[in-house]
Amino acid sequence: MNVAGVDVGGTNIEVGLVGEDHYVLERAKGGTPREGPQAVLDTIVDLVRSLGTEPAAVGVGIPGVVHAGEILTVPNLPNWDGPIDLGAALEKGLGVPVAFGNDANVGLLGEWLAGAATGSRTALGLWMGTGIGGALILDGRPFDGARGAAGEIGHVVVRAGGALCSCGRRGCVEAYAGRRSMERAVSTMVAAGRRTALYDIRDEEAKKGLTSKVWARALAEHDPLACELFTTAIETIGVGVGSAINVLDVERVVVGGGLAEKLGQDLADRVAAAAQPWMLTPHPDLSFVAAALGDDSGVVGAASLGRALLIGEPGGPEARISR
Amino acid sequence: MNVAGVDVGGTNIEVGLVGEDHYVLERAKGGTPREGPQAVLDTIVDLVRSLGTEPAAVGVGIPGVVHAGEILTVPNLPNWDGPIDLGAALEKGLGVPVAFGNDANVGLLGEWLAGAATGSRTALGLWMGTGIGGALILDGRPFDGARGAAGEIGHVVVRAGGALCSCGRRGCVEAYAGRRSMERAVSTMVAAGRRTALYDIRDEEAKKGLTSKVWARALAEHDPLACELFTTAIETIGVGVGSAINVLDVERVVVGGGLAEKLGQDLADRVAAAAQPWMLTPHPDLSFVAAALGDDSGVVGAASLGRALLIGEPGGPEARISR
Repeated sequence: MNVAGVDVGGTNIEVGLVGEDHYVLERAKGGTPREGPQAVLDTIVDLVRSLGTEPAAVGVGIPGVVHAGEILTVPNLPNWDGPIDLGAALEKGLGVPVAFGNDANVGLLGEWLAGAATGSRTALGLWMGTGIGGALILDGRPFDGARGAAGEIGHVVVRAGGALCSCGRRGCVEAYAGRRSMERAVSTMVAAGRRTALYDIRDEEAKKGLTSKVWARALAEHDPLACELFTTAIETIGVGVGSAINVLDVERVVVGGGLAEKLGQDLADRVAAAAQPWMLTPHPDLSFVAAALGDDSGVVGAASLGRALLIGEPGGPEARISR
Repeated sequence: MNVAGVDVGGTNIEVGLVGEDHYVLERAKGGTPREGPQAVLDTIVDLVRSLGTEPAAVGVGIPGVVHAGEILTVPNLPNWDGPIDLGAALEKGLGVPVAFGNDANVGLLGEWLAGAATGSRTALGLWMGTGIGGALILDGRPFDGARGAAGEIGHVVVRAGGALCSCGRRGCVEAYAGRRSMERAVSTMVAAGRRTALYDIRDEEAKKGLTSKVWARALAEHDPLACELFTTAIETIGVGVGSAINVLDVERVVVGGGLAEKLGQDLADRVAAAAQPWMLTPHPDLSFVAAALGDDSGVVGAASLGRALLIGEPGGPEARISR
């Protein structure tokens, strides 16, 4: 039975038709509309309908707080104000059951079912992109907290009172290691007279901003400013991940997101080296692994939430995934 | 059926005979021997035998890494070198089944079964004493990580590169908020010319060091140095607990340990106020509550591990506790 997985990101909406073995059989992709939930809803319906096969269910990963299948808040998409029952509207539009999950959580779920976290009973997902996202598998099942808000490794505070974060607090991991923050730091340092190849690379690559690809090229070319900021980013992530490991004692850390797609296992190795000094009693087999499914992790994880609706076990959608 | 709970602390070993309703029926107490595991074993056997009733099983909380009932390391007791099968030796000495757990974990387990965490599916225990300990209840069951080392909220790093911690790292919560660290800070500041009533209070109370009682009196008397260091301690704990909540999204924080026994709910309220600014999406019903069982929390939690052996469900002792 094939199910559609939908990964709603800040830039794109990715849709995949996913088989029972978690392979993605077909794909569709569109830009994320900025006009709010109705436009996002219409785009999801269009993309799912564009697949050659009609899915038996749909699962959607969304950048917001989702708990027990219910969307609570969507702070990271523009004009998402006022409540809308996206689930009921999507089920009506598509004629099949629809489940929801947080984007970071479904990403790790995909990696756990079919990628870099398979076989782990306890894992931390670290997503390095515009922001720093996170997700957890604990004791052999996805964990999203008392109310769907768990996993925010980007908002572990490693230098209280330090750099300003997009969340308004000072000293979070994301304030040093999120691409949004890093781009702001580049701008400040260039205004102060520092030189960098980052902007030239951005223009050569015909990008609007400092994307993961732009960073990866600048690092490969040993641009001093890029290397310096990236080192700070990794060191900061190391402190936050080390702290999280002291609290959670995970056996695997999956490093994903845009930067991981460009830098691969080398990025996971750098995060491991940076976290190591901060860990109190790490699991003897603790490993840091780059995400294996790339863009597909969210699609595969989201699809599994949809599939869980069909299996019809009790509990929230995520509780229904058993291994 | 009555079971004995044993709480092995750095200073004392507390033993209680615990009934099925988690009430402590009898108590015994002795100093923790400093000669190593054999002496600790002998003291436990003597204390349990000194109870008027023979227990049907024994549970022991120990300041070390314990996983699936197995003692892995005991870094916090002196002369604990070389492996010893404490479980087999105790079972032989007492003639009943014996289970083990980490001291912080059994403390929260006690509070969860019969104290300040009852009714919570997801809770963080914060133990403020010589060090800063922690423990977790996640998704309705005790969580100790992939290898028994979870819950170390005292070693969440809040000021990377900051104050030296007893673990050798710099900037951990415990480096600012553990009583050992605070006593060292007092000594440094007095050597630098600051005045404080802390030492006079210590002498009046006939204590060897700055105990929780000494701190509580100095705070009640508004000693400026004590208030200043305590404010820093609470602020630092607030950052660490806020970060942990961002990762775990718990619905309850139980504040226990020596300081909580002296300061009660006022301490829990101060921790809540200090954590609040650092939380991203706190659970709407998040509450901070002082531990309710006092010294008994460890005894009650440890006893429940022993009781679980009698019930004989599959899985590790902690997995056997269901609510």
